[in-house]
Amino acid sequence: MRRPFVFINSAVSLDGKISNERREQVKISSPEDFAVVDKLRAESDAILVGIGTVLSDDPKLTVKNPDLREERVRQGLPPNPVRVVADSLARTPLNAQVLNSDARTVIAVSERAEGERIEKLKEKAEIVVAGKNRVDLKALMEYLWDAGIRKLMVEGGSEINYTFIKEGLVDEIRVFYSGIVIGGAKAPTLVSGKSFDVPVKFKIKSCEILGNGVAVVWSLR
Amino acid sequence: MRRPFVFINSAVSLDGKISNERREQVKISSPEDFAVVDKLRAESDAILVGIGTVLSDDPKLTVKNPDLREERVRQGLPPNPVRVVADSLARTPLNAQVLNSDARTVIAVSERAEGERIEKLKEKAEIVVAGKNRVDLKALMEYLWDAGIRKLMVEGGSEINYTFIKEGLVDEIRVFYSGIVIGGAKAPTLVSGKSFDVPVKFKIKSCEILGNGVAVVWSLR
Ligand SMILES: NC(=O)c1ccc[n+]([C@@H]2O[C@H](COP(=O)([O-])OP(=O)(O)OC[C@H]3O[C@@H](n4cnc5c(N)ncnc54)[C@H](OP(=O)(O)O)[C@@H]3O)[C@@H](O)[C@H]2O)c1
Ligand SMILES: NC(=O)c1ccc[n+]([C@@H]2O[C@H](COP(=O)([O-])OP(=O)(O)OC[C@H]3O[C@@H](n4cnc5c(N)ncnc54)[C@H](OP(=O)(O)O)[C@@H]3O)[C@@H](O)[C@H]2O)c1
Repeated sequence: MRRPFVFINSAVSLDGKISNERREQVKISSPEDFAVVDKLRAESDAILVGIGTVLSDDPKLTVKNPDLREERVRQGLPPNPVRVVADSLARTPLNAQVLNSDARTVIAVSERAEGERIEKLKEKAEIVVAGKNRVDLKALMEYLWDAGIRKLMVEGGSEINYTFIKEGLVDEIRVFYSGIVIGGAKAPTLVSGKSFDVPVKFKIKSCEILGNGVAVVWSLR
Repeated sequence: MRRPFVFINSAVSLDGKISNERREQVKISSPEDFAVVDKLRAESDAILVGIGTVLSDDPKLTVKNPDLREERVRQGLPPNPVRVVADSLARTPLNAQVLNSDARTVIAVSERAEGERIEKLKEKAEIVVAGKNRVDLKALMEYLWDAGIRKLMVEGGSEINYTFIKEGLVDEIRVFYSGIVIGGAKAPTLVSGKSFDVPVKFKIKSCEILGNGVAVVWSLR
């Protein structure tokens, strides 16, 4: 199977949470980390999130630093990478920021998505049908490869991270461990889903202190 | 309030889990990390765990390296630190390894613990009644201080870690982030309980690569 290089990027509290149990957006990243994340976005061909993240955080998924956008344009690229949402039922709200005109957006849906919702979303995004009940990430990866995407950044949340790892589609995970404790048995963590029967092994590629936290890049072993 | 210096020590998967959703004991620590942990145990006056950890892992909580035990004896100390279990209902099994003769053991119970259970445990451990319904950690800290404990290592699990942090009893948290993904929305993490309304702030004291993971010492800000 041909697919892009896939890396997950996430900021977690020192106790491994990406949000609190109320699924509010908690300030986890540091400015120093954010600058690296923005650069990683600018170096990617596409950025993917799950619909859960769109619904709770309403992110723009664009490159924030204008110099980085200009640099992309100088290289003959659009200012922002392609945005991709895994959204089996086409639930992305029409006023979601991920649908604004700053960048091209692909909404990956399943065969269960209603035609009417798809039609409305088509005015603002490209629709890809992949998978019967849920978005088939492998099929989506092939689609993205054929569309010229060679480097895909996955920015969560915990459920989509889980499926990417489970299906063997992840090459690296970059985690910023931040100096806060969020707590909560029900707070979402970096990887949810079911526990793996055998833990999936990664090795350390790099580790650096960035402001009030530690950024570690783990690569699949 | 006079209390010992308290630090939590834990090994977590890169996604923040201390065990899987089946609460099995997963090999998370590396040999390099374990050597440091053993040294931290030897340098502590007491090691505390919650009854959940006793019931699922049956740990000995002793110093494994004989040189470190000898070094303690040379300093006029017992070979192993005092072991402390927070066990409101006196549920510690009589054959638990934490009750073996390798070290002194304190079982902290609440007023709800049955007299009969207490009597049986008294043959193998020192019993402290602290708290009405649940072990009152503040009262327990005062008791330990009065018993000469100046440095307390808390070795989990996630619920007891939570209460220690919530009650403002933690000075440092040492976390070994290991190169494995455990996954699972229901797997216990470093800190469970409820999410804090405002995340508790820590700062980085040190960070080092130890085998296939990163050990970070976080100190309260
Ligand atoms: N700290 C950070 O770095 C960070 C980053 C991102 C998000 N977050 C937090 O993460 C939380 C959201 O995470 P989440 O786990 O709830 O949502 P999520 O992973 O963003 O999205 C999960 C949803 O994606 C859809 N999906 C489509 N195909 C899928 C597939 N093959 N496998 C799995 N899911 C698929 C599913 O909904 P359908 O079945 O309807 O398609 C699923 O419910 C929020 O609290 C947000 O604040 C934090
Ligand atoms: N990776 C690691 O470093 C590591 C270390 C330790 C444990 N673990 C894992 O952690 C899991 C156990 O964690 P856990 O959260 O279930 O159990 P736990 O934190 O070890 O123990 C929780 C229990 O302690 C008792 N307790 C007494 N006073 C308390 C208080 N004031 N606050 C909170 N609890 C109090 C409560 O039972 P009562 O009400 O009956 O007293 C409570 O259910 C196991 O899966 C184990 O493998 C991993």
